[in-house]
Amino acid sequence: MTTNEKALLLHEEWNGKLETVSKAPVKTREDLSLAYTPGVAEPCKVIAENPEAAYKYTQKANTIAVVSDGSAVLGLGNIGPLAAMPVMEGKAVLFKEFGGVNAVPICLDTQDTEEIIKAVVNIAPSFGGINLEDISAPRCFEIESRLKELLDIPVFHDDQHGTAVVVLAAIINSLRLTGKKKEDCAVVINGSGAAGIAIGKLLLNYGFRHMYLCDSKGIVNKKNANNPAKKEMAEITNQEGKSGSLADALQGADIFIGVSAPNSVTEEMVRSMNSDPFIFAMANPVPEIMPDVAKAAGARIIGTGRSDFPNQINNVVAFPGIFKGALEGRARQITEEMKMAAAAALAELISEEDLNEENIIPEAFDPRVADAVAEAVKKHIH
Amino acid sequence: MTTNEKALLLHEEWNGKLETVSKAPVKTREDLSLAYTPGVAEPCKVIAENPEAAYKYTQKANTIAVVSDGSAVLGLGNIGPLAAMPVMEGKAVLFKEFGGVNAVPICLDTQDTEEIIKAVVNIAPSFGGINLEDISAPRCFEIESRLKELLDIPVFHDDQHGTAVVVLAAIINSLRLTGKKKEDCAVVINGSGAAGIAIGKLLLNYGFRHMYLCDSKGIVNKKNANNPAKKEMAEITNQEGKSGSLADALQGADIFIGVSAPNSVTEEMVRSMNSDPFIFAMANPVPEIMPDVAKAAGARIIGTGRSDFPNQINNVVAFPGIFKGALEGRARQITEEMKMAAAAALAELISEEDLNEENIIPEAFDPRVADAVAEAVKKHIH
Repeated sequence: MTTNEKALLLHEEWNGKLETVSKAPVKTREDLSLAYTPGVAEPCKVIAENPEAAYKYTQKANTIAVVSDGSAVLGLGNIGPLAAMPVMEGKAVLFKEFGGVNAVPICLDTQDTEEIIKAVVNIAPSFGGINLEDISAPRCFEIESRLKELLDIPVFHDDQHGTAVVVLAAIINSLRLTGKKKEDCAVVINGSGAAGIAIGKLLLNYGFRHMYLCDSKGIVNKKNANNPAKKEMAEITNQEGKSGSLADALQGADIFIGVSAPNSVTEEMVRSMNSDPFIFAMANPVPEIMPDVAKAAGARIIGTGRSDFPNQINNVVAFPGIFKGALEGRARQITEEMKMAAAAALAELISEEDLNEENIIPEAFDPRVADAVAEAVKKHIH
Repeated sequence: MTTNEKALLLHEEWNGKLETVSKAPVKTREDLSLAYTPGVAEPCKVIAENPEAAYKYTQKANTIAVVSDGSAVLGLGNIGPLAAMPVMEGKAVLFKEFGGVNAVPICLDTQDTEEIIKAVVNIAPSFGGINLEDISAPRCFEIESRLKELLDIPVFHDDQHGTAVVVLAAIINSLRLTGKKKEDCAVVINGSGAAGIAIGKLLLNYGFRHMYLCDSKGIVNKKNANNPAKKEMAEITNQEGKSGSLADALQGADIFIGVSAPNSVTEEMVRSMNSDPFIFAMANPVPEIMPDVAKAAGARIIGTGRSDFPNQINNVVAFPGIFKGALEGRARQITEEMKMAAAAALAELISEEDLNEENIIPEAFDPRVADAVAEAVKKHIH
């Protein structure tokens, strides 16, 4: 049986990958009077007087919503909210199993920006955080930034920031291994959707100076940027106002970051890069360039989104720990500082001895990961 | 320590009464590839082609939302969504523990009818049913009826219909015990909020003919009915167009149903009723009349909302089984027929030998209850 066939059978057996389980016993009349009426009125009264007490007496302290509109699900595209449920349930499972965070999948029956914002604002009292998931760009940018303004709980679009954190961690260790300096490296990001834009911003905040963002038509500049997110990026990248193809951008570059299309990078492009380039080819399941091809063309460090190659860039090392830390520290937002701290903490988990070209990022199953990320995030809560 | 003190301490210890627990293991890379990418894409694709498959592959088959706006919580009134959370978590616990139904508490940050409707419609893809809870009248009537039109999953306002089902069950067995006929009985309902209106409608559908609905100003009639729900009731109750006080309504009546205010019924009122009257005094925690007083005044059967008196009218014998049956039978709606069948099933659980004045309704902890109700509901799904 193939993985896909087995997955389908298992999903039928599970019939929903989550269960809501009671922490409170209700086996006796006394139990009922404590977990429900009349006793339950007591925490209600305390919270009515002091809203902050919701974190003491309810699931708000340790439960988030995983919210999607089903508009950009995996590589499947706009399959809608119902079909997105297996992915959101899976994400909720990962939050719990890797970070100890309770997570509730909420797939919304609207793809209208304003309605999504309103729906999330309206369900927010029940949750301590909102993880946005698989919402297509550029709507995801406005939805996230508006929700951050409107809500006093952390809002985090994992496709953007989870990916950005893990890429930054991989790059921190690539610099550490090769001795390259971030100030001197030219970075090319191919793909100007949610992940590409977020990676670019985080790397710039981290201190990278030379960056080109490419979309399917080539290098993004002030003249051709065709949405607000790209326009913003055109202001802070590509200082020379270059135009041209991805191949043009890669000439002499040090780092390629692909969140784009299979096989979009050729051997020749890699050869045209600076010496010892880093290639992060994260298109899934087929990367922008296969690792052996990139290696043969001179790439020093290669990462992909796949678990069957070394250096998997896998968000699961980031999002569970980030929310664990944010909830435990009662963060109101997840800031750029927290994301950079999370990336640094991930990078540090690889010791000097273990660091090599095929081991720049901790594995998903490394049991230290979530706590290390959570602690790093908590240190940056004010 | 009092129950209230103990309840507060326990709520702090629980810090949320629910946990989301994974049914899918994610201990190995293979586990991950089955519960998450790439395997998870398979059920997504099947659902994208056939929405009905969501019931086969996702939690929609067995998970409901418990939705409130915090506007009418227990006896506490309009305490808002955050303070309502302990109650909604408790309700979700009862759904799971008594009916095996997964339930997610969703407290909404709006009390606007249109916004509530929109929020519930938007979150509906994730759930197989919606249990509305503690939403004040008369908004609850419009919210429920509009949602029933808009959604293809069951929508049930427990404060209305759960209570109505249990009251009907108690009345069925009271008739059985006393030999009174429903056609001959005059029913007085005191309280024209969510529960009072729903009880009235269900009893009329069941076959009661003589009914007076009272509000705080007395008997509701076509002239004084001051909201659409009461106006509708004025058309189908009080055929003689009586006006007057609760005391006037009770003269010669057979059944009193109180969902109103403590101590609103006097000994004299009970004495003025027909012989062997039934008194269901469900104001909480202090009933409309205390059982010993009602008894002394000639009441034959007395029920309250309290667990420390006989014949507790407790919704927990209804809602878990109703949703269990509705989900298992894939009901699109919960109809009047299902509610009457649920009430009859509850009544039947009391055997001929066990039936007496102090035992007309099964206890919350009777292990037969949820399945009996669920089976009765399933028989009426078309």
